[in-house]
Amino acid sequence: MEHNREVEIDGSSNPIQISRLALDIGGSLIKLVYFSRNSGDDEDPPKYKVGVSNGVNGRLHFAKFETAKINDCLQFISANKLLLGGGFQHQENCTNDRSFIKATGGGAYKFSELFKEKLGISLEKEDEMDCLVTGANFLLKVPFLGRGYCMWYSYVTVEMHIYILEKKEAVNQEAFTYLNGSKEFVQIDHNDLYPYLLVNIGSGVSMIKVDGDGKFERVSGTSVGGGTFWGLGKLLTKCQSFDELLELSHRGDNRAIDTLVGDIYGGMDYSKIGLLSTTIASSFGKATSHNKDLEDYKPEDISRSLLRMISNNIGQISYLNALRFGLKRIIFGGFFIRSHSYTMDTIAVAVHFCSCVDLHILIMNTFQPVWSKGEAKAMFLRHEGFLGALGAFMSYEMHSLDDLVVNQMMPLPVNASLGADTNYDPLKGDLNGTESIQCCVYRA
Amino acid sequence: MEHNREVEIDGSSNPIQISRLALDIGGSLIKLVYFSRNSGDDEDPPKYKVGVSNGVNGRLHFAKFETAKINDCLQFISANKLLLGGGFQHQENCTNDRSFIKATGGGAYKFSELFKEKLGISLEKEDEMDCLVTGANFLLKVPFLGRGYCMWYSYVTVEMHIYILEKKEAVNQEAFTYLNGSKEFVQIDHNDLYPYLLVNIGSGVSMIKVDGDGKFERVSGTSVGGGTFWGLGKLLTKCQSFDELLELSHRGDNRAIDTLVGDIYGGMDYSKIGLLSTTIASSFGKATSHNKDLEDYKPEDISRSLLRMISNNIGQISYLNALRFGLKRIIFGGFFIRSHSYTMDTIAVAVHFCSCVDLHILIMNTFQPVWSKGEAKAMFLRHEGFLGALGAFMSYEMHSLDDLVVNQMMPLPVNASLGADTNYDPLKGDLNGTESIQCCVYRA
Repeated sequence: MEHNREVEIDGSSNPIQISRLALDIGGSLIKLVYFSRNSGDDEDPPKYKVGVSNGVNGRLHFAKFETAKINDCLQFISANKLLLGGGFQHQENCTNDRSFIKATGGGAYKFSELFKEKLGISLEKEDEMDCLVTGANFLLKVPFLGRGYCMWYSYVTVEMHIYILEKKEAVNQEAFTYLNGSKEFVQIDHNDLYPYLLVNIGSGVSMIKVDGDGKFERVSGTSVGGGTFWGLGKLLTKCQSFDELLELSHRGDNRAIDTLVGDIYGGMDYSKIGLLSTTIASSFGKATSHNKDLEDYKPEDISRSLLRMISNNIGQISYLNALRFGLKRIIFGGFFIRSHSYTMDTIAVAVHFCSCVDLHILIMNTFQPVWSKGEAKAMFLRHEGFLGALGAFMSYEMHSLDDLVVNQMMPLPVNASLGADTNYDPLKGDLNGTESIQCCVYRA
Repeated sequence: MEHNREVEIDGSSNPIQISRLALDIGGSLIKLVYFSRNSGDDEDPPKYKVGVSNGVNGRLHFAKFETAKINDCLQFISANKLLLGGGFQHQENCTNDRSFIKATGGGAYKFSELFKEKLGISLEKEDEMDCLVTGANFLLKVPFLGRGYCMWYSYVTVEMHIYILEKKEAVNQEAFTYLNGSKEFVQIDHNDLYPYLLVNIGSGVSMIKVDGDGKFERVSGTSVGGGTFWGLGKLLTKCQSFDELLELSHRGDNRAIDTLVGDIYGGMDYSKIGLLSTTIASSFGKATSHNKDLEDYKPEDISRSLLRMISNNIGQISYLNALRFGLKRIIFGGFFIRSHSYTMDTIAVAVHFCSCVDLHILIMNTFQPVWSKGEAKAMFLRHEGFLGALGAFMSYEMHSLDDLVVNQMMPLPVNASLGADTNYDPLKGDLNGTESIQCCVYRA
């Protein structure tokens, strides 16, 4: 069925074509990625590429839902008819007509039946670690002429066709460092990208050594993650959401809850071992006080202590793993961080502090530390929480550029991330992690 | 003033002579060590040692108090006149008559004035890390003929006199492994003792690489320690003491609170990366549930989850540091553990699990792990919480064996650890960590 409905977007009247939905269904959150084509705005092949077909311009859109409210997500997909372009038929060997969408995360298994029942669709499961790495590599790459790309292979014909998805940002504004309140985007040369440590902080934490495209190993992890912060925070405060708990921490003072070195050492540093009086000796150490109960502590102080404890712990374990494998970059993903200043600062400082301790040990002693190549650097990502969904998105086979075109032309989904505000400056505005990415797909 | 009072001990009528008090005043607990001499029971010099004077037989006694209740400790010291032998006069260069006792930990600084005010005594401060290591080395050594020893140096004369404190156990029943409910004492050959990783879990955690007597470096630590368990536990349950919280955990089920891999993956393992369905994916992950508040969870389940989370975390960070320096032994001290089965099991399993993951990575991949010497082993100590106090005790200068003799003969202090029950079998009985140690001091 073909419709041709004019819809508004960014003040233009170009109709929207939507296709390609991919999901990452985690323990706490469901992440969606889908592609919208800018109709009537096809791209001439880039001058630097020979023999390349016309490209299709469009945007990658992002949205998220709580896994506990999965029906909202199903509703969203259904109401916005995101499956019309995104539900693919298996070709050739397919024994049934059922449509499928790519999905990763544990929920791809857990909710398989639910999707069949409610939307009549199969979830084609992609490995979670694989998707995280693919998504991260896509976001991080800054190849020739500063465009991110990835490659899709088509096996329809005997030949392999390469389809390239390119980001159309002049500069890669994805990865950034954050220290002492200062945010700085980082352009990582493609030849210098590997290896790195990818630390994905979801409900729990996975730490993955990435050696190349599709080359990685999950080397570590910890169960003390976003779910711990939110779970303990919910028990200890009256907060009704993760964001509320995070917001509360802005106003808190952890010194009311944590025991500092100075509290034990009568106000002094323990300088012989490099601990300042302000260093936290024991998280929640003051909460052991006989005279006080939960009600006697401020929820904002509790939230701040929790956030500090968990962020610091993740930073430390990440550092120890980077050290183990001689990795100089630690890239943090997942929705724990949410570009929250205190979180990023704590993680970056934890990594930095551990590096300095090691340097101190190196200087003060005769034994060689296992790794002495210098500091590990902590980096964060704008689209931190969508690595898995992006990776799942990348795993679709492309048969032709028409795969990106749908016959239906729909308004942009309600509550989805909107097309970029052309006045938006990522260096100034809040990085809420759901900004769409302008891109182009062409066949090489 | 000389008294000669007959007192009972262990059914004998040998009077007790007490001397040498040392303290470790930490963030949560004050630990005491003192020596009691068995009067009339001097030792012939061991046959294997030539030119050695008669030894003095006695016992090392241990006691602890909450730092928040320091007055109880002062009362104990005062009422039992523990200073009569333990308060030493500075010799020669001393400009005043004030007595002093050896003390370590932050409280040696923080409560310095209080001791002066209440007991008229100075605290001679000894470095905390130094004392921990000295105490641990003393407990761990099994030298020739199976006796623990340490050496005191006397500088009174031009020559250096060596005083040896020997433990008089036939077998060193101090260090033990614990896995799957099975406890096994370990005899570590003196030549094989170093290097090892000492992990002292107090309010916070210190991790010390020990290379020899007096040779060590604090290489790491974490603020997530005993104070965190007790602080968070106190906020989340109605428990009034650390021991009560620990006792509660016996009956708990962490699966009501923690999100397991199977909860996310629909009951399945994530076998590709070696995670079982029963592996904890997110500690306290289930406490994010919208429908439930703190009151809806059982305190025993909360306690168990907390204990699991903190023990596991300590085990993991300890392992990563052992790995870093190629250390095959990790020795756990401090009063967090208290020979609690679930705690020791969790820590030992965490260390073991990490080792297995590394072995898996080693086998499955071409890259070399930084350390491939085999599994790190977790070990525990009977007198786990008294390392610092023992080390402070060892730091006294000895001028003669008379330093161990007092003119006063006193009954054993009330509430102090009693002389060993000769029927006590450490392999069967509870290891409550305060059993006195039979020993002998002689001048070599």
